[in-house]
Amino acid sequence: VVCRGLYRALCIREKNMQQSLQRFPKTPSQYLRAIEGEPWKPSDAGPVFTPPVKDGQDPLDSGNLPEDLGYHVQMKDGIVYVYADKAAAERNEPKDLPYPSLENFIDDMNFLLVLIAQGPVKTYAHRRLKFLSSKFQVHEMLNEMEEMKELKNNPHRDFYNCRKVDTHIHAAACMNQKHLLRFIKKSYRVDADRVVYNAKGKQLTLKQLFQQLKLHPYDLTVDSLDVHAGRQTFQRFDKFNDKYNPVGASELRDLYLKTENAIHGEYFATIIKEVGSDLEDAKYQHTEPRLSIYGRSPEEWARLASWFNTHRVYSPNMKWMIQVPRIYDVFRSKNFLPHFGKMLECIFVPVFEATVNPQAHKELSVFLRHITGFDSVDDESKHSGHMFSTKSPKPEEWTSQKNPSYTYYIYYMYANILVLNNLRRQRGMNTFLFRPHCGEAGALTHLLAAFMTADNISHGLNLKKSPVLQYLYFLARIPIAMSPLSNNSLFLEYAKNPLLDFHQKGLMVSLSTDDPMQFHYTKEPLMEEYAIAAQVFKLSTCDMCEIARNSVLQCGLSHEEKVKFLGEKYQEDGPDGNDIRKTNVAQIRVAYRYETWCYELNLIAEGLKNE
Amino acid sequence: VVCRGLYRALCIREKNMQQSLQRFPKTPSQYLRAIEGEPWKPSDAGPVFTPPVKDGQDPLDSGNLPEDLGYHVQMKDGIVYVYADKAAAERNEPKDLPYPSLENFIDDMNFLLVLIAQGPVKTYAHRRLKFLSSKFQVHEMLNEMEEMKELKNNPHRDFYNCRKVDTHIHAAACMNQKHLLRFIKKSYRVDADRVVYNAKGKQLTLKQLFQQLKLHPYDLTVDSLDVHAGRQTFQRFDKFNDKYNPVGASELRDLYLKTENAIHGEYFATIIKEVGSDLEDAKYQHTEPRLSIYGRSPEEWARLASWFNTHRVYSPNMKWMIQVPRIYDVFRSKNFLPHFGKMLECIFVPVFEATVNPQAHKELSVFLRHITGFDSVDDESKHSGHMFSTKSPKPEEWTSQKNPSYTYYIYYMYANILVLNNLRRQRGMNTFLFRPHCGEAGALTHLLAAFMTADNISHGLNLKKSPVLQYLYFLARIPIAMSPLSNNSLFLEYAKNPLLDFHQKGLMVSLSTDDPMQFHYTKEPLMEEYAIAAQVFKLSTCDMCEIARNSVLQCGLSHEEKVKFLGEKYQEDGPDGNDIRKTNVAQIRVAYRYETWCYELNLIAEGLKNE
Repeated sequence: VVCRGLYRALCIREKNMQQSLQRFPKTPSQYLRAIEGEPWKPSDAGPVFTPPVKDGQDPLDSGNLPEDLGYHVQMKDGIVYVYADKAAAERNEPKDLPYPSLENFIDDMNFLLVLIAQGPVKTYAHRRLKFLSSKFQVHEMLNEMEEMKELKNNPHRDFYNCRKVDTHIHAAACMNQKHLLRFIKKSYRVDADRVVYNAKGKQLTLKQLFQQLKLHPYDLTVDSLDVHAGRQTFQRFDKFNDKYNPVGASELRDLYLKTENAIHGEYFATIIKEVGSDLEDAKYQHTEPRLSIYGRSPEEWARLASWFNTHRVYSPNMKWMIQVPRIYDVFRSKNFLPHFGKMLECIFVPVFEATVNPQAHKELSVFLRHITGFDSVDDESKHSGHMFSTKSPKPEEWTSQKNPSYTYYIYYMYANILVLNNLRRQRGMNTFLFRPHCGEAGALTHLLAAFMTADNISHGLNLKKSPVLQYLYFLARIPIAMSPLSNNSLFLEYAKNPLLDFHQKGLMVSLSTDDPMQFHYTKEPLMEEYAIAAQVFKLSTCDMCEIARNSVLQCGLSHEEKVKFLGEKYQEDGPDGNDIRKTNVAQIRVAYRYETWCYELNLIAEGLKNE
Repeated sequence: VVCRGLYRALCIREKNMQQSLQRFPKTPSQYLRAIEGEPWKPSDAGPVFTPPVKDGQDPLDSGNLPEDLGYHVQMKDGIVYVYADKAAAERNEPKDLPYPSLENFIDDMNFLLVLIAQGPVKTYAHRRLKFLSSKFQVHEMLNEMEEMKELKNNPHRDFYNCRKVDTHIHAAACMNQKHLLRFIKKSYRVDADRVVYNAKGKQLTLKQLFQQLKLHPYDLTVDSLDVHAGRQTFQRFDKFNDKYNPVGASELRDLYLKTENAIHGEYFATIIKEVGSDLEDAKYQHTEPRLSIYGRSPEEWARLASWFNTHRVYSPNMKWMIQVPRIYDVFRSKNFLPHFGKMLECIFVPVFEATVNPQAHKELSVFLRHITGFDSVDDESKHSGHMFSTKSPKPEEWTSQKNPSYTYYIYYMYANILVLNNLRRQRGMNTFLFRPHCGEAGALTHLLAAFMTADNISHGLNLKKSPVLQYLYFLARIPIAMSPLSNNSLFLEYAKNPLLDFHQKGLMVSLSTDDPMQFHYTKEPLMEEYAIAAQVFKLSTCDMCEIARNSVLQCGLSHEEKVKFLGEKYQEDGPDGNDIRKTNVAQIRVAYRYETWCYELNLIAEGLKNE
């Protein structure tokens, strides 16, 4: 029964990933087919990434955009449908694309909800996980020196020059506090008399703005800037959010950390480009900053794309993501939105329209080429109370001031990304990964929803609390971008962080900074994150390089870049896929991981054979 | 009885510090005099530092050296005596300088040995320390926000631009592993055909040397360099010492990390100067690297001074120290030395001679101007078995192959520094602080010996194990340079480090790196050390700035520099001595520390009043 349950859980994820053109690894697929007695065929479903910019090519070139398909897009029950034209919409005859089925999703979800609570399944998963821990410790004792020997004999590659990606970082906090401070001071030296702020119709120069705040930039320090998380923010996400306001002044946040303001986000763009150029200098570090789309107005996309293109916020070491804060309740209470469906419309319809008719949305189309995924963000510890089911109000009917539940948000984002990705692939355009924040706090259902819908997640701390989900994340090798320094300031003390435990068991973890502005002290936040983990958890070089390799596998870098950074066969599971000359991960380690994984998958297959 | 004991202990330290021209704070002196019913007079005994180099002045200028005094120096019973001339030496009529008395020292030591083992004293100290802990926690709860407010209102000063000194670092490991690697590769690109090595009379070019080692620098990585401490070094100081050999090859250590080799230590000097120039760029960081004098031959000093002067290894952000490894047993077993007295002679006589006749030892005299102290180093966990007493063999009689005990070493170093300092002060020359490694491991007697002799110490971990010593270090405010990252690799897991506990109780701790080459990952090792402590121990900005201020107070920077970095009155105890504009330490904090200190000192005074 246990194996049947785990089998079906993996099938659910496989199906959902393939439908939405996200990733599901080959090895468990092969086991699933073997269980079914079916031959395994390589799937052609999978994400499409924008290839890297070629020499001499303009990354923001808007020539050669595909032509207008003339399609009509329209939201129905919270999901964008594509029609040949308006008439087809009226006849309710959408184009032939995969559309998600809410009933199936709810069925699958209810099945999984039961599964993770079943006693025998919990016992089984708990025992397997315990075994995985012990097995790794034995592996380490026996092979640590051998792994190190392999690395020592690996010429010209060490932890410093293997690629690592900051898989979870917010653009508005991607610089460290000192960098922001320096930038503010510099802007004042250069721009004191420039009009930079619009206060209720009154135009203010930078000088006047600071006078109004009773501040002089020369006196400003990281203390008075007060953007760093301290002891006060522990378990207080609300206080933490206020830290985005330098000197507690939302005016400065608007001026320096926003894309929309009186100077069209010029300062914000400049800071980000400085971060990018530091990364280019450091060469081996990449980052995936998230920019916000709030879903308050359909113009947001065009404005964000215009900011991106105008200021040419491009760096070869950055891949962009869109984060959607789950703050419908805030907008609804201020009457900015009539219902939740409108929010989804603002988020997705503009992207569909740019996909259908790129030439009419040039800037947005170019911007979307550089977007690799969607994130869903907010304080998970806020409880919503709503239980997602087939009886839940449809998004258009969700007019209440209450916020929908995490699962409700996640489903509708996933559903729209599914349709969007299939449309974009038809057009030869890049697709998007769904990579929500998940399991930082709150209910276990969050991790369940992400298991069903997300290519990979950020945080995942709460996997500690559910052996079944943890085991499923292991079996499906779902990447988890962990940020122990962020957790240390907000939710969990460093020494209690499950990063080491997950890593030892073989979950696919990477390290990320989340918010360097709030959490980090040095000029190289990602290195700080690795260094502290290495010191506190006593990670070996092999551990660190494995985590770095995971980060490249998890991220939205293009196929070509992954080949360059990880080796030709990076998509293969197991030692075949590891090129030690590029990754500096010992083959012994990769072989151990692969054998261990196959062993666990095989247990399920064997369990079902006896049925 | 308890108070009587603590009182006498403090008197012992006060006397020893004053005799040797080291530091003893004013406040406990005042309490001691009050107990005695004596008026307190400011002491004129104290260290003399070389003033900073003035603009346009050459830091290595050897003009204007004082004239020859014509004195004769000669070692007797392990201590260098100064005579008017050789005849006076034969008549045993030394010049009028303070000389230490072995009998008094042993008496004092025996008294303290009994004191730290006495039940009532242990209980008293334990209770007071517990009280200090709780008191700080209450202080924090009540005043944390107030402290922060003070800092926020303090213009233009934050943790980044307040001065911090790396109070404990070894020159041979002062660069990080990546820096060393880059330097090796660069040297090969430039110098491949240069003769750099002398192997048993055969001269080798850099190319030939690497061929002999079957290495190509291009392939070299931090893994193959293998200088970083890993899990293998925990509790294994022996393995750790081997990490000083890049690629495990002592040839590379000789070439890159030594002052004496076929290229006269040029590479080593260049690396150190690069570290220095990075510090000058960072501006707010200083460092106190230690160079070795082994005491194997009297020529060592001249050669080291020549290296220093030839390569002009000077940086305004560096203050130099001399470390003496406690490896008499190694030299004796190879018959390099006839007895321990010879080792002391090699260490001290050249310095005395240069002090008496600087013009005959120009390079050494210039070098000594930049030396601020002596360190005693080696694995403290090695047990010697010898019990220091008046019956111990004199150094000249110590011909056995066994190593003298830690205390024996410490006493004879202290005794010679005492005489030397008094002679140098007479001549208007700078004096030296004694700052041994102490309490990293091994017996409690180490910490006792340092309490009697050392201006300040490095490590101090074992203060955990003796409440009486810990309380005495608190009362006398003996600075402790702690290196939790080093401890984490060698002796004690990070989370168990007593740094936070000591800091809360009010012991005077600073942060230092020990060996960036072996322990650190980033380009800014001292910042890494602070960042990790801040994250793991959740230090506030005020905590960090207090620790940074402690580091400046502890170090060997000159009076003028301390005035510049800490404020005019930095020598005052309590809030008067704190200039928040320079230190960024809240006055509330300094006032709390001062009141708490006075309260504890007063308890002793009160206890004795009732006698």
